[in-house]
Amino acid sequence: MAIVLGSHQYGKAESRLVRIYRDQARHEIRDLNVSTSLRGSFAEAHLYGDQSQVLPTDTQKNTAYAFAKSAGIRSIEGFGLTLARHFVDHTAPATGARVEVEEYAWRRAVVNGVEHDHTWIRAGEEVRTAAVTVEGKGEEQVAHVVGGFKDLVLLKSTGSEFRDFLTDEYTTLAATSDRVLATSLVARWRFSSAEPDWEAVIWDDVYSSVKQIIVTQFATLQSLALQQTLWHMGKAVLQEHPEIAEIQFSAPNKHHFVVDLAPFGLDNPGEVFVAADRPYGLIQATVTRDDASDAGGAWAPGAGLA
Amino acid sequence: MAIVLGSHQYGKAESRLVRIYRDQARHEIRDLNVSTSLRGSFAEAHLYGDQSQVLPTDTQKNTAYAFAKSAGIRSIEGFGLTLARHFVDHTAPATGARVEVEEYAWRRAVVNGVEHDHTWIRAGEEVRTAAVTVEGKGEEQVAHVVGGFKDLVLLKSTGSEFRDFLTDEYTTLAATSDRVLATSLVARWRFSSAEPDWEAVIWDDVYSSVKQIIVTQFATLQSLALQQTLWHMGKAVLQEHPEIAEIQFSAPNKHHFVVDLAPFGLDNPGEVFVAADRPYGLIQATVTRDDASDAGGAWAPGAGLA
Amino acid sequence: MAIVLGSHQYGKAESRLVRIYRDQARHEIRDLNVSTSLRGSFAEAHLYGDQSQVLPTDTQKNTAYAFAKSAGIRSIEGFGLTLARHFVDHTAPATGARVEVEEYAWRRAVVNGVEHDHTWIRAGEEVRTAAVTVEGKGEEQVAHVVGGFKDLVLLKSTGSEFRDFLTDEYTTLAATSDRVLATSLVARWRFSSAEPDWEAVIWDDVYSSVKQIIVTQFATLQSLALQQTLWHMGKAVLQEHPEIAEIQFSAPNKHHFVVDLAPFGLDNPGEVFVAADRPYGLIQATVTRDDASDAGGAWAPGAGLA
Amino acid sequence: MAIVLGSHQYGKAESRLVRIYRDQARHEIRDLNVSTSLRGSFAEAHLYGDQSQVLPTDTQKNTAYAFAKSAGIRSIEGFGLTLARHFVDHTAPATGARVEVEEYAWRRAVVNGVEHDHTWIRAGEEVRTAAVTVEGKGEEQVAHVVGGFKDLVLLKSTGSEFRDFLTDEYTTLAATSDRVLATSLVARWRFSSAEPDWEAVIWDDVYSSVKQIIVTQFATLQSLALQQTLWHMGKAVLQEHPEIAEIQFSAPNKHHFVVDLAPFGLDNPGEVFVAADRPYGLIQATVTRDDASDAGGAWAPGAGLA
Repeated sequence: MAIVLGSHQYGKAESRLVRIYRDQARHEIRDLNVSTSLRGSFAEAHLYGDQSQVLPTDTQKNTAYAFAKSAGIRSIEGFGLTLARHFVDHTAPATGARVEVEEYAWRRAVVNGVEHDHTWIRAGEEVRTAAVTVEGKGEEQVAHVVGGFKDLVLLKSTGSEFRDFLTDEYTTLAATSDRVLATSLVARWRFSSAEPDWEAVIWDDVYSSVKQIIVTQFATLQSLALQQTLWHMGKAVLQEHPEIAEIQFSAPNKHHFVVDLAPFGLDNPGEVFVAADRPYGLIQATVTRDDASDAGGAWAPGAGLA
Repeated sequence: MAIVLGSHQYGKAESRLVRIYRDQARHEIRDLNVSTSLRGSFAEAHLYGDQSQVLPTDTQKNTAYAFAKSAGIRSIEGFGLTLARHFVDHTAPATGARVEVEEYAWRRAVVNGVEHDHTWIRAGEEVRTAAVTVEGKGEEQVAHVVGGFKDLVLLKSTGSEFRDFLTDEYTTLAATSDRVLATSLVARWRFSSAEPDWEAVIWDDVYSSVKQIIVTQFATLQSLALQQTLWHMGKAVLQEHPEIAEIQFSAPNKHHFVVDLAPFGLDNPGEVFVAADRPYGLIQATVTRDDASDAGGAWAPGAGLA
Repeated sequence: MAIVLGSHQYGKAESRLVRIYRDQARHEIRDLNVSTSLRGSFAEAHLYGDQSQVLPTDTQKNTAYAFAKSAGIRSIEGFGLTLARHFVDHTAPATGARVEVEEYAWRRAVVNGVEHDHTWIRAGEEVRTAAVTVEGKGEEQVAHVVGGFKDLVLLKSTGSEFRDFLTDEYTTLAATSDRVLATSLVARWRFSSAEPDWEAVIWDDVYSSVKQIIVTQFATLQSLALQQTLWHMGKAVLQEHPEIAEIQFSAPNKHHFVVDLAPFGLDNPGEVFVAADRPYGLIQATVTRDDASDAGGAWAPGAGLA
Repeated sequence: MAIVLGSHQYGKAESRLVRIYRDQARHEIRDLNVSTSLRGSFAEAHLYGDQSQVLPTDTQKNTAYAFAKSAGIRSIEGFGLTLARHFVDHTAPATGARVEVEEYAWRRAVVNGVEHDHTWIRAGEEVRTAAVTVEGKGEEQVAHVVGGFKDLVLLKSTGSEFRDFLTDEYTTLAATSDRVLATSLVARWRFSSAEPDWEAVIWDDVYSSVKQIIVTQFATLQSLALQQTLWHMGKAVLQEHPEIAEIQFSAPNKHHFVVDLAPFGLDNPGEVFVAADRPYGLIQATVTRDDASDAGGAWAPGAGLA
């Protein structure tokens, strides 16, 4: 029986990085939040405080900023992949790397009916996300890319039911065949492979398409439960996108309760609601393929770490 | 010398209220956060715990929900005005009321190229705000309406300078004639009068117009300082809108620092930036008219309260 | 009729400053969040972009850090006073300054039963605050000091009632003679004068004493309403502290609702509660003296600014 | 090739639950945030919207509140275990359950030198956490219990170094042999077994002891890197607590940068610091036993879910 070091990783989290492209009059902007982690043989640092194999987290941050200039940012999936491969390929003790990137969207200001060349308004809708995991060196290197978004807040004012559910002695909920359904959706899709020569346009096109499919399913499905909505979202995404191996959803059910206005002599046929904060339902599901490629460490923020 | 009760008010804060209009196939949504306060002769409650003149905050909340049904919500300025007047006119001890409302914007989901009838995506750009203050009863009643927004995040990647400033022994800042300028703008404009018969369309039209003027000024002015930008925003708004008496801005200067890439053999002519969180500059200013109507308690969240 | 610049100020907000005293083996720590603003003749910067009278906000930040070393931090009230006076006395165009400081408390780690010399745990209870306003130069200079705290979360499980209140057609609340009372208290007290030679010990002693009085009143008063509790807190503070001119409270009523367990065959005599987030009651009050000194701009974050 | 439903679970998140024990004059309080999830055969709900096997999340919430009364809350580990077992044992389609609980600490108000019977101040230091996973029914049922805390903010003003690290072309960091070390620690420890008859005192005693060991190691170790500190924390905990199989840490390195005061003619030997928000280093590590029991799904918030 011995006490031993288990899974471990280290890195720099939340480097806020803005990249402006200004080689043309019409500037472009990419606004990111970058987190990087290295995995590998760092036991000496833990056990003895020996830093000789530890590339400082400050260096990881510098690398992200330098690559934003030298390699540029065409898509966050591609940028994450470039960074992660760099760390594994150029840092001797690193046998793996995890790069997580968030992107904040900006839309161009419209002035006199025309999109402005160098002014934007933060769009603030969903936040786009990417998580890239690179494992192993050289020939055996494997890369996993997960695209996604968070904070996409959707609401439908009808077309949602919840009834005929299982009950027990603690059940008091009334069934409903017409309710408001709202969620702040997190979706993350794993690409079957990560082609190094994919152009940004591919990642960006997939992103736009997946988002549109998800919104369309949410809007058009007569929902018997949020579970059903998630399944149909996922199925439609996988049907349309063979390059996606699987997709995960985390969907809080943001409850909107009908207010009882009867004491005030008013009826309320689904018109006035309390939007509740907590608690909320939380529905989580994966839609996958029966022949999906091995996910490896694609989903885990830290290999073996909670 | 005696210890006495000074300014005081009480109410219900942050009632989250969603109103769906579903009398037509194409539903409408208004998504609000409502806070109400009453002012008046509530000394007995403080000094002796006598609640006989205290309308519960729970009742204030109920009233907001009931009015969302009975009066409806056409604009948050109008809704606030209706609520505030109700409280002062129907609650004997209340000599004043303050109603603050936030509105969250939703845009319709687009499905197969068509806006959906009953599904929305939370827009998440700026939050619209209104603050209504009603003072006095009967003939002497005065109402102040302040429209506005918060969290409008603007950024321009050029067209901003900061140089030739005052220096002292603690000054180390370098001058610049080309920087990123970004802010998360709060703007609040006071209407010269609050006409009870204004249609929602007026409040909404003013809102859209003011926002557009502000964005246009931000984009087009060659800014020598954020102070100058605010002045030009305010001046343009007042020139265009005679119904606005004055406008206030609170503008954090969200610093974007150019990253020094020279140690890595890279130049960085305004392309890669660190977006800093704290500290931030904070520029605040009012633009007004020399014959502006008396503001009374329009601006203060609590009369005499900090 | 002309459009004119109204109230305005500018500064650096939220400089996070940690000061370690290490001249003895037993180190000391002060952990602050400092915001400074200058007021005065800055119209040229707004109207014409002329910065020649504008001391950069970056310089204000530098000054705070430099003074943390040269003058040191004995109390946040004293530090704020020193900084504010410096800005007004040494910056020609500044006719006033506002310095707001938050302080985060740390308690010493206890190791083997002994307080450790240089290790602390963030206490995380209330945040201490100070707001100093200096107006005018030279002989006519006036300084206002407001001490205080925020986020002091108090709860009592009995000894609180709410009944015999005013009702109207929108009232549905049931009266109660035994409820949970909880608040996240903000208290701010204005000193009658700001003596430049006050030692830190005075500010600190007042702070400790005021907090203790407030907690004691909260605990011991049989509360008929939160309003009554605030009054008694304020009265007790003013009775004990002649150096305090007035005190303001902002007290959210953090509702704890008794859960109806009857459907499950269980009674619930005040034992199981839902702690609600929103909405919340909000009670605000000032307790003052009938001969209190003039508050000037002591309370306002921005003179004439909302 | 087919599209199939993968891992999934559903439940109610963040039920805020306060339990008062008032059978004696000296009341007791437990203040929790409870999240529950069920796992099992819920495919019909996803694929066909059939809810007949779905116990509503509202029922899960009710169950938590009812058990707070009937079973009581002696420790959050025990409460989570009771709830999770109930769900699996009494809900036919559930083959597993996950219960996560946070507990907020309160300390008694001290009035006239005596702890008050029914008034508390929210302590606000770390948040205690528990995560219980029950897998399988009947004889084969396995339960995993993970205790822990988050948001324990520690700082030491000396006794920390970072030097002799690996460098590459992107390294600019200077080595230091005396720096401020600060973190907001998350620690989670997995119990080797979950005995149903453990008294609350055991869970509580372990909690207090582990926290004390961690604080002591942080304070007393001359730290060559945060990695080393984490290892020594974990090793000391496992040495002292045979009932703990492994412990995980997630430790942001909250950077405190020495301010350069030289431009102002001041030296700064580790006395004045900027406390930075982002980015931050992030060190994560597990310390385990080479014969640790199988962790099963103990660590994962959702089996197979990211």
